Amino acid sequence: MCVEKYRLIRESTLKICIGLKIEDFTVQSASEVSPPKWHLAHTTWFFEEFILNKYSPGYEKFNDEYSLLFNSYYKSVGTHWKQEKRGLLSRPTVQEVLNYRNHVDAAMLALLETTMEPERIEFLLEIGLNHEQQHQELLLMDIKHILSSSPLSPVYSEKRLEAFSAGSLKWRHFKEGVHELGNSESEFAYDNERPCHKRYINSFAIRESYISNGEYLEFINSGGYHSFQYWLSDGWDWINEEKIQSPLYWRLIEGEWYEFTLHGLVLLDMYAPVSHISLYEAQAFANWSGQRLPTEFELELFLGDSKLPLWCWTSSHYSPYPSYESYMGGLGEYNSKFMCNQFVLRGGCFATPSEHYRNTYRNFYRAHQRWMFSGIRVAKDI
Amino acid sequence: MCVEKYRLIRESTLKICIGLKIEDFTVQSASEVSPPKWHLAHTTWFFEEFILNKYSPGYEKFNDEYSLLFNSYYKSVGTHWKQEKRGLLSRPTVQEVLNYRNHVDAAMLALLETTMEPERIEFLLEIGLNHEQQHQELLLMDIKHILSSSPLSPVYSEKRLEAFSAGSLKWRHFKEGVHELGNSESEFAYDNERPCHKRYINSFAIRESYISNGEYLEFINSGGYHSFQYWLSDGWDWINEEKIQSPLYWRLIEGEWYEFTLHGLVLLDMYAPVSHISLYEAQAFANWSGQRLPTEFELELFLGDSKLPLWCWTSSHYSPYPSYESYMGGLGEYNSKFMCNQFVLRGGCFATPSEHYRNTYRNFYRAHQRWMFSGIRVAKDI
Amino acid sequence: MCVEKYRLIRESTLKICIGLKIEDFTVQSASEVSPPKWHLAHTTWFFEEFILNKYSPGYEKFNDEYSLLFNSYYKSVGTHWKQEKRGLLSRPTVQEVLNYRNHVDAAMLALLETTMEPERIEFLLEIGLNHEQQHQELLLMDIKHILSSSPLSPVYSEKRLEAFSAGSLKWRHFKEGVHELGNSESEFAYDNERPCHKRYINSFAIRESYISNGEYLEFINSGGYHSFQYWLSDGWDWINEEKIQSPLYWRLIEGEWYEFTLHGLVLLDMYAPVSHISLYEAQAFANWSGQRLPTEFELELFLGDSKLPLWCWTSSHYSPYPSYESYMGGLGEYNSKFMCNQFVLRGGCFATPSEHYRNTYRNFYRAHQRWMFSGIRVAKDI
Amino acid sequence: MCVEKYRLIRESTLKICIGLKIEDFTVQSASEVSPPKWHLAHTTWFFEEFILNKYSPGYEKFNDEYSLLFNSYYKSVGTHWKQEKRGLLSRPTVQEVLNYRNHVDAAMLALLETTMEPERIEFLLEIGLNHEQQHQELLLMDIKHILSSSPLSPVYSEKRLEAFSAGSLKWRHFKEGVHELGNSESEFAYDNERPCHKRYINSFAIRESYISNGEYLEFINSGGYHSFQYWLSDGWDWINEEKIQSPLYWRLIEGEWYEFTLHGLVLLDMYAPVSHISLYEAQAFANWSGQRLPTEFELELFLGDSKLPLWCWTSSHYSPYPSYESYMGGLGEYNSKFMCNQFVLRGGCFATPSEHYRNTYRNFYRAHQRWMFSGIRVAKDI
Repeated sequence: MCVEKYRLIRESTLKICIGLKIEDFTVQSASEVSPPKWHLAHTTWFFEEFILNKYSPGYEKFNDEYSLLFNSYYKSVGTHWKQEKRGLLSRPTVQEVLNYRNHVDAAMLALLETTMEPERIEFLLEIGLNHEQQHQELLLMDIKHILSSSPLSPVYSEKRLEAFSAGSLKWRHFKEGVHELGNSESEFAYDNERPCHKRYINSFAIRESYISNGEYLEFINSGGYHSFQYWLSDGWDWINEEKIQSPLYWRLIEGEWYEFTLHGLVLLDMYAPVSHISLYEAQAFANWSGQRLPTEFELELFLGDSKLPLWCWTSSHYSPYPSYESYMGGLGEYNSKFMCNQFVLRGGCFATPSEHYRNTYRNFYRAHQRWMFSGIRVAKDI
Repeated sequence: MCVEKYRLIRESTLKICIGLKIEDFTVQSASEVSPPKWHLAHTTWFFEEFILNKYSPGYEKFNDEYSLLFNSYYKSVGTHWKQEKRGLLSRPTVQEVLNYRNHVDAAMLALLETTMEPERIEFLLEIGLNHEQQHQELLLMDIKHILSSSPLSPVYSEKRLEAFSAGSLKWRHFKEGVHELGNSESEFAYDNERPCHKRYINSFAIRESYISNGEYLEFINSGGYHSFQYWLSDGWDWINEEKIQSPLYWRLIEGEWYEFTLHGLVLLDMYAPVSHISLYEAQAFANWSGQRLPTEFELELFLGDSKLPLWCWTSSHYSPYPSYESYMGGLGEYNSKFMCNQFVLRGGCFATPSEHYRNTYRNFYRAHQRWMFSGIRVAKDI
Repeated sequence: MCVEKYRLIRESTLKICIGLKIEDFTVQSASEVSPPKWHLAHTTWFFEEFILNKYSPGYEKFNDEYSLLFNSYYKSVGTHWKQEKRGLLSRPTVQEVLNYRNHVDAAMLALLETTMEPERIEFLLEIGLNHEQQHQELLLMDIKHILSSSPLSPVYSEKRLEAFSAGSLKWRHFKEGVHELGNSESEFAYDNERPCHKRYINSFAIRESYISNGEYLEFINSGGYHSFQYWLSDGWDWINEEKIQSPLYWRLIEGEWYEFTLHGLVLLDMYAPVSHISLYEAQAFANWSGQRLPTEFELELFLGDSKLPLWCWTSSHYSPYPSYESYMGGLGEYNSKFMCNQFVLRGGCFATPSEHYRNTYRNFYRAHQRWMFSGIRVAKDI
Repeated sequence: MCVEKYRLIRESTLKICIGLKIEDFTVQSASEVSPPKWHLAHTTWFFEEFILNKYSPGYEKFNDEYSLLFNSYYKSVGTHWKQEKRGLLSRPTVQEVLNYRNHVDAAMLALLETTMEPERIEFLLEIGLNHEQQHQELLLMDIKHILSSSPLSPVYSEKRLEAFSAGSLKWRHFKEGVHELGNSESEFAYDNERPCHKRYINSFAIRESYISNGEYLEFINSGGYHSFQYWLSDGWDWINEEKIQSPLYWRLIEGEWYEFTLHGLVLLDMYAPVSHISLYEAQAFANWSGQRLPTEFELELFLGDSKLPLWCWTSSHYSPYPSYESYMGGLGEYNSKFMCNQFVLRGGCFATPSEHYRNTYRNFYRAHQRWMFSGIRVAKDI
């Protein structure tokens, strides 16, 4: 079973890169963006470091330097190449990275097929595959950002991957009371989704649809980016320092609004959800509209099992749940050390692999970040 | 009644400045620190801007330029001098600022004694006096920081104002359940303490005593500042970039630890609570000790009515309460726009005026800040 | 003789500070500006460090910490307080600094009156007094900058110290040939003015008058600050990053040009020389006008013995003369280590003490600096 | 004639890229380094912009966006892509850039073969080809820097391109007097080499050989990087901020010194000239050794017609010659606007095309830059 799953997930990563040019694999268009080549190597390193080096006797590393280059930030397993310098690496080449993947895949498949004690590595394998799936979404986010950095507006996909309608304007209501939140399943879930715990939630309502580009444009046209009263203090400083006037991929060309998409530059669709916005912008919009962002707990109650096309910003800072326990050892760094000055997003997006998603899933980013597939849903007290 | 209260509170501010040299009033030792002169003028401006200009017909401003100089950040009432440039102002002189205070006080007292509709200004007066009291604590924090910036280690107070013992090592236990938290009183409270609302709190325990300097030194001596596993990721970056190795005012002189205090440089008292630490350090210490910081709600339950000598860091990001409503108009900026990337401290400190403090009081700072009188109390799940 | 000279020069420094408020003595309005208090102490430290500590047996330092605080950058004589942090020092107070001056003056006068070997300290005394005189000019530059930082535009002097006319529009011509340049006198001169050496100078002409405010305003009004072709590449970057649109102390108030002066804010005098401009602006103006800046050697030939009211920028980078030899020991740092990325100004200014000035005098600043009393004279090939 | 020359020079550029991987063409390893792809396109743009657009009627641009992307800094001919963002461009691909070269070359060759008035474009062609040759050297400098940024130390060339011996230790003497310097030939030379003019030069001597790695290592081992007295003030700040301890490409690996070269990582050759050092380091070394750097004029007298293997730093700031006149129009930006805060290097290097070099050639860089092929020759007064 897990052999097949390993194979499929690893292949999916490569499929995302179909259509890229060799040149696209190496560019780092912002310090938080990684070159596609780096994702391919880093996810591979994860299996090598946490599984093969420990559980595959006689495994020979593909290249000793790669731990330095492709460790992301796990300080307990050695020094690492600085994140903002990933774009300096023309070598190893894409071909060498693919060879690295093949080398590790061969060893992993051999290990999975022959190991006498599968349960010892099961947890690590699960983490490794979930980690790979997380990077599949990151890969698409990063590809979009990299391609957007060229004024040539290259096309990644012939299909319009990001064309959804914002949805119905109705509101769904919820009654107040104590709820059990967080993950209680025996299946895999990240440590930050656990433990399942009780919370008292006031009654509230969430609008069924995303905020659309058209609605967001109204906010802009009514002077939203120039009216400090809607903004968090940090957000106001940010839009002024960075001269932010619209969502990340919007382009005003000769009086007409366009949007850079994975399909290249297209006219802005007023009925599609606004996307690639920061928490600051989401919150300012919500203030302007007289509503508010939902908390992550309200959204957890709102969300069914189905994945959304865009992550929804919540008003919840990313914090540990009551009685939270992080992973042990090197993997303890996976989630817990980021629980500071970030906000939670909920709901998944079209780029999130379906098998990877759960409705207790907590995604998190800094309040100014917006290269992820983020959108806005509004809530209100009732 | 309120005339006397106004007089007393305004006088208390000046009393804090007794013993300062003229030169001390002008220095800004960090971008977040304000010169004492600025505090004296800004609190005065607050009454002028929000009360006299609106409710005292015929009031003449002391100096038209002062709104620019002494508005802190209320963007709805005009532009303001940049916070980090407050130390550039040698003029107005201290004497001119005192004249400004007298001018405004005379007008305020006249207004308070003659107004026919006291209820219209009652709320603004309440805010203005609470604002002044907040600045009394800030004034002392800033004086300490300014004096600490000279290698001459000047003495502010002949008395040891900051000498407390850390307290008993016992733990107090709390049972789980739904609690009403936040402020439900009819008396004055800030908008951020309201509304009173229900929360489900797991059972927990909090240690009766502060973490002492001696305990904190153990953390340092065991390599705490060099062991990334105890630190939030942002905190680790911060201590490395800023080369932080100990609490803000500790000084290692020829192998002996000293502490800069309002009484000058003194030998570090191992039994006193550690103070002037950041949230990062508080959290790293808690991790190292196998415990955790309390949430702000746990501390609210723990605190009686009495004020503490040092603010306690909590693990709670500063967020609005369910159904929070901010002040209207210009004062809406007072609290709500800061609810991002800050953490809550609870309990008050020796510098907090007693009449200003309530056990629902929420103080908040950024995770790296430490010039306030902050300390550590640890909690655990039970 | 030298006792009297010492007394007079030291007194002149204090006279410059008459009219300052205590608050003015402590502010540092830019990293390159020093608080007046610091100048008073630093010039005093110079005598203590280089003369009293070595040649006055039994001399007791006024305060051991002062070397740290008031050494400017002489690395060979110990560590020093960072230049950009001079404004953090509220202590020592102005009174304590005056006491320091008195302490050192008493010891210096005793030494000068009793020393059996005056020739041993003569050179150091000469340097110390020249150093003090240099700081007299710096003091006035810094006072102007500090007072300009307050929107209250305080008045330093009842007299208009900076009111000169730009002068005659005639050109003075010079023939080409080998000239002896640099200082050949036996009297005191800085090492950077020496040795006297030969240079071949092409024929040239220099305009008798300074560029006036009126002429400079024409440059501005014709779009000078928006036309890259007049600017050095670094200068263009600088005006764009710093948003420079006019000379340092010009203020456009309701359509009218004013200038901040030591006499406060006054209407811009169109016939006075433009002042407080950078090399970048001087050079851009010269390009726009179809002329060029003179070299320092052309200006040395042009200048008689009389001092000018404003320093003239030259097109000469600050470099050593052929066969240059710097001072020995700690004083070797006085000039030579700054011979990189600075430009020479020639001619003195109204704030330069007359006895301090020589026509071989080389002043030097970075191309973007403009808080010194700098002006423009243009030259051309003939 | 010029058809053949055009063809040869354009081909030489491509030859330098043989052996690069596609990935190497896109990386920008420092803000001053350009991706090889950019060089290939920029030199092509130069012909398109300055010749084809004006003198080839009916010429169709390959791609309208390319002027934006591949203009370097010529502000008079339109806006340009920021230099430090050249590494963000994965597109156009290397193949597209080669197509661009072919497109322009075809048009250029057609123009050269058919133009009725060759003299009109002769000067522009000359500049364009010299510009291309300058970029050939830059290309190699940048390739070396890019490859050095990967810890894998890739090999660019099987041959040791940079292996020279430092040469004889003898000194060559020169007598004082007036010399004619600068370029007086009718052949092509840059504006900054002109006009030929007279200078008085004191007698001096220059050592025949470069400073060797072995000599430089002595400087390091004697504490050169920790002794401020050898350094310019800016240089001292630079080595401390950037933590510079050795030449750019030196690597200390387990107690042994290596050097990254175009041939990969090799043991440091103690008899080869030290290379890739800054003016700061060159000057500090010279001070330490009791000598000095030559001026650019001394080196011009010293140099015969033959090109050196490494550029020699001079003590001369980069300034215009007497009666200097820059190119007219857009090309006026070629040299003159950089005459500020740079130093001159003389003598050429192994990467400078021979036909491009003249002994009046002035190369110039900032005092801290060191990715060019720079070395040290020392001089002294006699």
